[in-house]
Amino acid sequence: MAKRTAGDARYAPTPKTRVRRRPKRAVYDRDIVHRILDEALVAHVGFVADGEPRVLPTAIARIGEDVFIHGSANNHMLTCLAAGAPACIAVTLADSIVAGRSGFGCSMDYRSVVIYSNGQTVQRAAEKEQIIEAFVQRIIPGHRVRAPKAQEVAATIFLRFPLKEVSAKIRDVGVVDVEEDYSLDLWAGVIPLCLNAGAPRSCPRLKPGIDVPAYALKYRR
Amino acid sequence: MAKRTAGDARYAPTPKTRVRRRPKRAVYDRDIVHRILDEALVAHVGFVADGEPRVLPTAIARIGEDVFIHGSANNHMLTCLAAGAPACIAVTLADSIVAGRSGFGCSMDYRSVVIYSNGQTVQRAAEKEQIIEAFVQRIIPGHRVRAPKAQEVAATIFLRFPLKEVSAKIRDVGVVDVEEDYSLDLWAGVIPLCLNAGAPRSCPRLKPGIDVPAYALKYRR
Repeated sequence: MAKRTAGDARYAPTPKTRVRRRPKRAVYDRDIVHRILDEALVAHVGFVADGEPRVLPTAIARIGEDVFIHGSANNHMLTCLAAGAPACIAVTLADSIVAGRSGFGCSMDYRSVVIYSNGQTVQRAAEKEQIIEAFVQRIIPGHRVRAPKAQEVAATIFLRFPLKEVSAKIRDVGVVDVEEDYSLDLWAGVIPLCLNAGAPRSCPRLKPGIDVPAYALKYRR
Repeated sequence: MAKRTAGDARYAPTPKTRVRRRPKRAVYDRDIVHRILDEALVAHVGFVADGEPRVLPTAIARIGEDVFIHGSANNHMLTCLAAGAPACIAVTLADSIVAGRSGFGCSMDYRSVVIYSNGQTVQRAAEKEQIIEAFVQRIIPGHRVRAPKAQEVAATIFLRFPLKEVSAKIRDVGVVDVEEDYSLDLWAGVIPLCLNAGAPRSCPRLKPGIDVPAYALKYRR
């Protein structure tokens, strides 16, 4: 796996990851990038097939300086990426609605990460098992599952994307209006957003006598 | 704008939008696609630049059978798309965490839409003004803003993407475990997710005497 060098706290900007629009919003700090990746439930993976863009949502799990995606060996995206097609992986967290005093002053506060990387197929079954457990713990911390079966592991492609060309972009400034607009008789402000979990619903085929565990009752991101 | 023909309730599948993996989850119904697009706050737009994939998050607004994106005339993605680069636009709503009895049985219930389309630059200022108001009302229904200025409209690219090659994918089945796993002594179930709005925070430079409006206090998606 890609190793983090001590003291190397930032990803080096490259021509692709140097943020062109509003460069003040660009962040290359590894810890901030990691936190955004770890908070997100869904990543959007872009690749090129027959010269045309494709984008599909999928779960990701970060382990150190790698992110992983997985899926069936029949999956078109995974077979393209396993064959060497470069990937662009984007993760976005919407933090607030920004209601400005003009249409162009309306926006969002958000945190996003864009990763450019080439997938490497994970070959060893033991490593695949470790990654699937990382997916479970990332999405449902504390959840217990049975051990994976050899044929499940064999039928699933896991791809590793080393975090090398990476940038984050953060907007957290709330309302930024044109100077003369601040005196208008219009409301402006920020509406914070939060992804909340509702009451868990047990599987209808749950074995009798099993309670809903605390990690499900108290689930939050 | 792309017109909807009476009785034409579904998008016709094409080689790109025919869902390959789990085709039972595929949905081409226009009303369902529209609802997913209208509920989403963020779309991920994929395009190809110098032969490589790019994906960036942005706001979208749907008007009838078109979706629109907009941004500064200096924006790299918008200039690429305005020059004719094909786009793949993906929108994903995470509805529930699915906690299964095995790692491969853990999943999410979700609704997603993927659009393949080519952007058309909106030329007329009057139409651009109509679209920016659609963005405001889509993101903050009821919000009042001042009229856009001619130079703001001129400095902004609006791109129209007719909805023609479109598919949705919906997973809403909760836990689906391997048959023999249902008898295990493990909890399994669904944790519903909801994007909630917190208390609005007025702009620190708000003109005195302006109350927080009801649409902000009661904001929900």
